[in-house]
Amino acid sequence: MRVKELMDSNFNYVLAADDLIEVSINMENHRFFTAPVVDDNKKLVGWITSLDITRGLRENVSTIEGIMHSTDEIISINANETARLAVLKTSEYKLLSIPVLNDDNQVVGVVKFSDILNTFSKLYEIKVYKIFKAMESELKGVSWDELMEASAIVTRRRTGKKVTAEQYENNIHNATFGEAIWATGGLEKFFVGLIAIGELVLARKVGNARK
Amino acid sequence: MRVKELMDSNFNYVLAADDLIEVSINMENHRFFTAPVVDDNKKLVGWITSLDITRGLRENVSTIEGIMHSTDEIISINANETARLAVLKTSEYKLLSIPVLNDDNQVVGVVKFSDILNTFSKLYEIKVYKIFKAMESELKGVSWDELMEASAIVTRRRTGKKVTAEQYENNIHNATFGEAIWATGGLEKFFVGLIAIGELVLARKVGNARK
Repeated sequence: MRVKELMDSNFNYVLAADDLIEVSINMENHRFFTAPVVDDNKKLVGWITSLDITRGLRENVSTIEGIMHSTDEIISINANETARLAVLKTSEYKLLSIPVLNDDNQVVGVVKFSDILNTFSKLYEIKVYKIFKAMESELKGVSWDELMEASAIVTRRRTGKKVTAEQYENNIHNATFGEAIWATGGLEKFFVGLIAIGELVLARKVGNARK
Repeated sequence: MRVKELMDSNFNYVLAADDLIEVSINMENHRFFTAPVVDDNKKLVGWITSLDITRGLRENVSTIEGIMHSTDEIISINANETARLAVLKTSEYKLLSIPVLNDDNQVVGVVKFSDILNTFSKLYEIKVYKIFKAMESELKGVSWDELMEASAIVTRRRTGKKVTAEQYENNIHNATFGEAIWATGGLEKFFVGLIAIGELVLARKVGNARK
């Protein structure tokens, strides 16, 4: 995934000559806390946050130019970079958003923390059930019931909790991937559990074939 | 994971009687865009963002009370709720942060978007290599080289790309979980690929044992 797929290309921006009070009203009405400052060619010339606006209002600054951060202070990213890099920068610098530039230094979008959160949340919200369905179709010749039975056995072995295949199926219908990795103690452990289930179900399949 | 494990308990807050200009300077100096308004018992009585401050400064409001949102407008969360719910609320309402309450309605922390991003990023940054190491230790009797060999075979079958076991090992040393799920086309597909590798390596193990 590239930055250009993650960014919002319908973003708010301001000009250096814009009236500070008008911008502040606009930010309140459209509820944005940051904006790139661009020139007539959409090139990045500055960056503002609502905290620069509060200072400007207190100090009676008249235009955006008087409060904006200069380009050497701005964390920006190229549209062709990996989405991963945008996430790392946002997280590292605790940014609300990052301006996205093309190769001509024009602002073509903004990556907002809310878009990143949204992408992550979707991943976390995937039902564990779906992963098992994918597993079922991959392990050709293994039935869903056999998979649930093996899952219940592995769970009993690992946690000591008595759980039936039906209860297990119920659990994974409701559980999300996010809950599962928190419950199992991390991504690797969650995956190891799945491998253990796959291993058991395959061993039983081989055992049955030999009978 | 509970909200109390995700929240920042060392958070900025303001009082309704606080001077608006002083709060605005404090928010700029400590770079926070939102804050809960609390009473003397730390009970939540309001919420402000830097966009409320800009309005207050323009309209010459003297104290926080004149600009704060009332409690019925505030999205808050109980400390004992799941971290998942905090993430969903933050994402749904595009919040910068959520005040965390105890059962007495006192503010005990704040969940910030940056803390959520940080938690998510760490998950994304886990090296695929680590998942394979967990897989190796789970599949007792399968060597690392056999695992890499099976991985290269599955990759060749699925993508048509010629890749050796050495190249595969190199790739997973550098690749992160986030990159892997983006490259394979989603979480389920990534897991299915791993299950296919597990299946092949087990089949080869059974085959060798029979020889």
